[in-house]
Amino acid sequence: MHIGVINGPNLNLLGVREPARYGTATLAEVEAAVRARARERGADLSWVQSNHEGVLVDAIQGLRGRADGALINAAAYTHTSLAVRDAVLAAGVPFVEVHLTNPWAREEERRKSLLSDLAAGIVCGFGAASYVLALDGILDLLQARPRPPVTQV
Amino acid sequence: MHIGVINGPNLNLLGVREPARYGTATLAEVEAAVRARARERGADLSWVQSNHEGVLVDAIQGLRGRADGALINAAAYTHTSLAVRDAVLAAGVPFVEVHLTNPWAREEERRKSLLSDLAAGIVCGFGAASYVLALDGILDLLQARPRPPVTQV
Amino acid sequence: MHIGVINGPNLNLLGVREPARYGTATLAEVEAAVRARARERGADLSWVQSNHEGVLVDAIQGLRGRADGALINAAAYTHTSLAVRDAVLAAGVPFVEVHLTNPWAREEERRKSLLSDLAAGIVCGFGAASYVLALDGILDLLQARPRPPVTQV
Amino acid sequence: MHIGVINGPNLNLLGVREPARYGTATLAEVEAAVRARARERGADLSWVQSNHEGVLVDAIQGLRGRADGALINAAAYTHTSLAVRDAVLAAGVPFVEVHLTNPWAREEERRKSLLSDLAAGIVCGFGAASYVLALDGILDLLQARPRPPVTQV
Amino acid sequence: MHIGVINGPNLNLLGVREPARYGTATLAEVEAAVRARARERGADLSWVQSNHEGVLVDAIQGLRGRADGALINAAAYTHTSLAVRDAVLAAGVPFVEVHLTNPWAREEERRKSLLSDLAAGIVCGFGAASYVLALDGILDLLQARPRPPVTQV
Amino acid sequence: MHIGVINGPNLNLLGVREPARYGTATLAEVEAAVRARARERGADLSWVQSNHEGVLVDAIQGLRGRADGALINAAAYTHTSLAVRDAVLAAGVPFVEVHLTNPWAREEERRKSLLSDLAAGIVCGFGAASYVLALDGILDLLQARPRPPVTQV
Amino acid sequence: MHIGVINGPNLNLLGVREPARYGTATLAEVEAAVRARARERGADLSWVQSNHEGVLVDAIQGLRGRADGALINAAAYTHTSLAVRDAVLAAGVPFVEVHLTNPWAREEERRKSLLSDLAAGIVCGFGAASYVLALDGILDLLQARPRPPVTQV
Amino acid sequence: MHIGVINGPNLNLLGVREPARYGTATLAEVEAAVRARARERGADLSWVQSNHEGVLVDAIQGLRGRADGALINAAAYTHTSLAVRDAVLAAGVPFVEVHLTNPWAREEERRKSLLSDLAAGIVCGFGAASYVLALDGILDLLQARPRPPVTQV
Amino acid sequence: MHIGVINGPNLNLLGVREPARYGTATLAEVEAAVRARARERGADLSWVQSNHEGVLVDAIQGLRGRADGALINAAAYTHTSLAVRDAVLAAGVPFVEVHLTNPWAREEERRKSLLSDLAAGIVCGFGAASYVLALDGILDLLQARPRPPVTQV
Amino acid sequence: MHIGVINGPNLNLLGVREPARYGTATLAEVEAAVRARARERGADLSWVQSNHEGVLVDAIQGLRGRADGALINAAAYTHTSLAVRDAVLAAGVPFVEVHLTNPWAREEERRKSLLSDLAAGIVCGFGAASYVLALDGILDLLQARPRPPVTQV
Amino acid sequence: MHIGVINGPNLNLLGVREPARYGTATLAEVEAAVRARARERGADLSWVQSNHEGVLVDAIQGLRGRADGALINAAAYTHTSLAVRDAVLAAGVPFVEVHLTNPWAREEERRKSLLSDLAAGIVCGFGAASYVLALDGILDLLQARPRPPVTQV
Amino acid sequence: MHIGVINGPNLNLLGVREPARYGTATLAEVEAAVRARARERGADLSWVQSNHEGVLVDAIQGLRGRADGALINAAAYTHTSLAVRDAVLAAGVPFVEVHLTNPWAREEERRKSLLSDLAAGIVCGFGAASYVLALDGILDLLQARPRPPVTQV
Repeated sequence: MHIGVINGPNLNLLGVREPARYGTATLAEVEAAVRARARERGADLSWVQSNHEGVLVDAIQGLRGRADGALINAAAYTHTSLAVRDAVLAAGVPFVEVHLTNPWAREEERRKSLLSDLAAGIVCGFGAASYVLALDGILDLLQARPRPPVTQV
Repeated sequence: MHIGVINGPNLNLLGVREPARYGTATLAEVEAAVRARARERGADLSWVQSNHEGVLVDAIQGLRGRADGALINAAAYTHTSLAVRDAVLAAGVPFVEVHLTNPWAREEERRKSLLSDLAAGIVCGFGAASYVLALDGILDLLQARPRPPVTQV
Repeated sequence: MHIGVINGPNLNLLGVREPARYGTATLAEVEAAVRARARERGADLSWVQSNHEGVLVDAIQGLRGRADGALINAAAYTHTSLAVRDAVLAAGVPFVEVHLTNPWAREEERRKSLLSDLAAGIVCGFGAASYVLALDGILDLLQARPRPPVTQV
Repeated sequence: MHIGVINGPNLNLLGVREPARYGTATLAEVEAAVRARARERGADLSWVQSNHEGVLVDAIQGLRGRADGALINAAAYTHTSLAVRDAVLAAGVPFVEVHLTNPWAREEERRKSLLSDLAAGIVCGFGAASYVLALDGILDLLQARPRPPVTQV
Repeated sequence: MHIGVINGPNLNLLGVREPARYGTATLAEVEAAVRARARERGADLSWVQSNHEGVLVDAIQGLRGRADGALINAAAYTHTSLAVRDAVLAAGVPFVEVHLTNPWAREEERRKSLLSDLAAGIVCGFGAASYVLALDGILDLLQARPRPPVTQV
Repeated sequence: MHIGVINGPNLNLLGVREPARYGTATLAEVEAAVRARARERGADLSWVQSNHEGVLVDAIQGLRGRADGALINAAAYTHTSLAVRDAVLAAGVPFVEVHLTNPWAREEERRKSLLSDLAAGIVCGFGAASYVLALDGILDLLQARPRPPVTQV
Repeated sequence: MHIGVINGPNLNLLGVREPARYGTATLAEVEAAVRARARERGADLSWVQSNHEGVLVDAIQGLRGRADGALINAAAYTHTSLAVRDAVLAAGVPFVEVHLTNPWAREEERRKSLLSDLAAGIVCGFGAASYVLALDGILDLLQARPRPPVTQV
Repeated sequence: MHIGVINGPNLNLLGVREPARYGTATLAEVEAAVRARARERGADLSWVQSNHEGVLVDAIQGLRGRADGALINAAAYTHTSLAVRDAVLAAGVPFVEVHLTNPWAREEERRKSLLSDLAAGIVCGFGAASYVLALDGILDLLQARPRPPVTQV
Repeated sequence: MHIGVINGPNLNLLGVREPARYGTATLAEVEAAVRARARERGADLSWVQSNHEGVLVDAIQGLRGRADGALINAAAYTHTSLAVRDAVLAAGVPFVEVHLTNPWAREEERRKSLLSDLAAGIVCGFGAASYVLALDGILDLLQARPRPPVTQV
Repeated sequence: MHIGVINGPNLNLLGVREPARYGTATLAEVEAAVRARARERGADLSWVQSNHEGVLVDAIQGLRGRADGALINAAAYTHTSLAVRDAVLAAGVPFVEVHLTNPWAREEERRKSLLSDLAAGIVCGFGAASYVLALDGILDLLQARPRPPVTQV
Repeated sequence: MHIGVINGPNLNLLGVREPARYGTATLAEVEAAVRARARERGADLSWVQSNHEGVLVDAIQGLRGRADGALINAAAYTHTSLAVRDAVLAAGVPFVEVHLTNPWAREEERRKSLLSDLAAGIVCGFGAASYVLALDGILDLLQARPRPPVTQV
Repeated sequence: MHIGVINGPNLNLLGVREPARYGTATLAEVEAAVRARARERGADLSWVQSNHEGVLVDAIQGLRGRADGALINAAAYTHTSLAVRDAVLAAGVPFVEVHLTNPWAREEERRKSLLSDLAAGIVCGFGAASYVLALDGILDLLQARPRPPVTQV
């Protein structure tokens, strides 16, 4: 099993940026926790972070035919990037939408996600644990049904 | 640790109602899975299901001072009941919003939740596993911070 | 053939409440007229009225596997209850939406029905006669096609 | 008793156009069924179909002082024609809005009718039977009250 | 000076249709009053009424190169017909929008005119006198400025 | 003079729930203060609180023919329940809309009341004193005019 | 017959301000033309202009019981002043809404008038002639019907 | 205790303007009743009425440091004046929003108040009695809490 | 191969009407160019123009079973006619939406087409050449796939 | 060079009103700073403050032909006064919109300015320094181009 | 003649991504077909594809002074990128908006293009043939008029 | 004092692109003017321009802990980029929003800025001088208050 993890803009500042909101763990520490859990469940992991929309589109395209599932925290691009949405459709890989915080408890423009209606599931609000729970969720889904569908609007 | 689980209208038909969407597990089977996981983590569980808005309001009020956290799947009332929202505020117990399916991938009127902005976290789309992951999430949160805040709009 | 008839809140005051709008016939008299017509057409009838949303959800769920069709006048819940809508979907029974008056000729908030897009047909505006015509309509449909579909949005 | 029946654009293709939606009966067959029922109830019938908005306006104007009631299936003009609406107001004849299908279960632009708030009643969704039930309804109304009002917005 | 007068749907029923709103004068009587005033001011008049949108489009097109100005009471088409609007643009003749009643004091859908932003002026609310005042107005404008512009949106 | 007082969901937690917003007086203490004032003015009082929409509908219906006026604090149902609104119309009893806090100074969804346009008056923002002032207001109205009208939209 | 004429803010600059739009006639010249026409028709005239909303409210109130009709060009306050609207209602005098230009052919915020639905008629777009035509219109109305109604929304 | 009472445009016509809606008491009579009640409760009163927005702004500013509380019936300016709102914020005096009628039972544009979210409380619908009840309310509040807060949006 | 070409209102004035926008070629010249291209590609052509909505509905209905494809320039009816839309659905013939200008670069009301979501393709903005390119496009599609689908919303 | 400075309602309370938001400098101190800077740049200054919309309209009209540029801080009237907007258009003097705070960082109703689209420039958020910077800006513009245009919508 | 062709995000996956929607031809094959047609018409071609918004902005800027016309298929950025729109304005090169599919027949967010109102023409829905037809169209335009204007909103 | 200056997409074409709107100065000339002013005030300056959203996000992140303030002209990304907004929040540096033109006097989509509510101040409309004035403004703010807050929505 290969799971691709995609991290969007400004997540490289995790632990530094607004720690009261996002916690003090760095993105490297989150990655370590997710990798540990992946090893326990026998899954393989790829990990990408970028502030560049095009780089993220490239990375999501690259999951096609290589990954069995994905965790996507597109950060700000969650709410504005139709290109990321198209890449997700093109990749054809079932994924869980992940957020450290609960975006539906934040400003109006973060309550509209361009990915939610394509996601197999959503996990948000548990900080770094959101990633670990989402990994469990996607692996459960992949084991239960050979290939969960990517919903098309 | 005591966790209250609240289930809204029509969930009593789980396994019978639209199995292609909601799966074939009954609510009793979901409850059994969640109780098993609670035992593993040493948590105590209460479980309520009702089709009646008032009964759910009573049940949520009843969590006050008795539960450390809650899982709330208010089903259709998620989208229409300000009374359930008020009860959640009155109870003052941190909770995870849970759904079997991913409501943001469904009809327009299910994409607006009256609870999301109060929830500590959200887990949806993993069928019965949503409940188990949500239980893990709320227990992680409760152990990490003595008392996660219930957000007020 | 079994037809379930569901009557929503405040219909118990029929004949007393705003007679200029709703007429002077009581709900018992309406029921008698519908039962008479059902007998003529050889159909069996169940009849429920409640002011409680949860009771109506229970009653609609109870039609599942028991009724061949239904007449639903959900009154005020027509416009506000997603739980009633979910119950109708769960019941899986073809139904006609019935109203004594024509709600599309009334206030703005009564012009949006949460049931119309699921209904096999609509009959409204004929007072008590709305029920009798709707009964004829649903029986005609059930006889013409073995099982008219319940539309899912 | 004289009842005018008005049929709007594209209904001349009934039985040919999208039979999965509208059924295989032709408009002539629908007319025959309605005329049969009118004879049983001792009513006289006029019948018009046109694809031209102006012809329909003329026909509806022509009901003034000649018809006691009307059945109007304005088809697409139901949703766009203020001229048809004005003609209905000018004619001053009580009428039932009739549709073969249930337009409230269709696309967004068909869920807004410019006639509904003027109609004495609505019957839709029963195919050709919609016309027969609507005829029964208008005759019941006309016999119960000498002259049911045409509502002005 | 030649002035074209265009009258839209249902105006042929003037004097009969809703006399409390539109008065008891017939359209022929209105025409007579306008012709009398035109004679006094030395202007020539053409007069058209139709319930058919296409006939009105033809008539407005026919004003091109023949009329110096126009009075247009498009009745219901005022609010819905982009084809009438296009014909007005194509004709290129300055005109006054005329109404017997004041449509901005009526239902919401009559408060949006598709012609107002093209009109040189508006006169409404004076019954038949609206036409006579509008004739005075357009003649004043045509004499004051050789050719008042037809506004293009 | 008989005045019915209706209290909606979550008011049973008064004094416990969010005391910084709603004060520390319990609902029993509010009831005592209102009863004291009623006695002073020689009025008789009935008092109901429920978290159940249907129970409140029943209670409001029960005021018909029994109460001269009412104080209604429908809490969350103020903003969502068309059934409560219908019951108020059916009861036909003049009433004052009462709130402990000022809902127009709170979240958006509490600024739309389904009862305000039916109310004879509104009193809000004075805590428990809101009830006492509202009682004075309704008694003043009832004594000044034999029967103040219940407004119909 | 006494007719009050009310002129709103910035009309004192007529002839100076944007002459390409408003023409080169000054307000004094407009007044002279209207007074001349009033004399011809045997009517008496009062004339007010102010840039101050409160002065205009006072002036409109002052028409009560003194004027038989009014011409109101409230200029910018047409679109923003509910106080002017209330004064018009309080004065109870039938009036014509007058504009030099056609505001419905201008910016969006000038297409919504707070007076149109109260006006007996509207005349706009004829420059200074708008006032003279409007005077003719109101006098015609006042002579035809003893007292044309001021519409209440 | 000093309480300032502010009265907005057109209230000077009270008793004359639309008596069916506003009653036959004049503003002087309302003032007398409020002054009487103030004397009973030992409070001092200032009283202002103006049709001019600027005068009202001046008057509200003048309450700063002089009044302990205020009753504000800004009439039409309630719905349109951000300057009155700013003056209320600048004055920093707790106040009750007062209306003779219930504006939420009137036209759409009167259902949005620019003051409600700043008010300590609202009293409306009781005619002249609204003022007296509001005076009682503000005095109760001022005695209960030394200084009730003026809410800032 | 038979291709039907449908031309809507005011296109008969081509070359005369607003030449700066629509060019100086007449509709006859456009027809000649399209017929020339059809001959080159071995296709047969029918050609209709009308200002009457009903005539166009008849013509589109007439394509059923006779044409393999169509070019439709419904002009103003593109944006307002649900009847034309229904006729297109009833005809069941794949078509290209054609415009001389680019309507998405024009006024707001021309940016919403009722045909676009049914069209196999769109060609606009090339003047008369739009028709020739559209003819090429529909013939390419018809040759590539035996029968391109008419999309149903 | 003459620069007119216009100050709207409630600015007379500067230094007293909400000092945490607006600072402790009084309007007299702001005026002194602006006058000092004007002297340095050799410009002449006029200064007006009023709470009255009409007085401000008069003052802005008075700039016509007298001032080369203006600084306008219309305070609350920025967002509500079409009369102030019209006066600005009538005055024909290029101006800078000035605010002490940044209104786009405040409540929704302050994010819409009726002056922004007419302003040559905007300076806000620097407290009293906003005025000085704006003065520099308008003088730079006036010296760079002989007469910067007042934009017309 | 030099024509620049710009291809936006995810078009590199053509032939692989959703072949049922976009066809099986790769982008290289589309390029070959367009180059072939360009050779036939004696035009020179540049070709760019990128998933990166900034790269596309650079490429469009690079057309300035180098290309006579352009074909732009900005894919997802069509609907979200104001920067691409600005680059198109800055480049000042007439262009045709191209799409393989018909975006107006797809999801809501694809029906709003930020480029349509700047485009000389639009060609969509013909798969790879869209590019070839658009090339013909832009060359026809460039030969007919020396320099077709780029529209500014 | 270190001030970072951030310039968004298409600003590299300054002096070339639409000179009638943006002036003839190049970005290098603007930079020179700002650097000159910075030297006068003893401030240090960094300068970035990019057409790539990700590069701008990187650059804004890079200001954290290094710059005391910033000038941000995000050009088109001002209106579309939530990622730039998040970077601004993450950087935690007070900034002035700068524009050469006044975007509130331009098209609708440029009137909504995603940065305005975070900015300490705004300066726009003075061409290159906007930058110099903004530099003065931010330095004044930084000297007056040790650390002006970055507003969080």
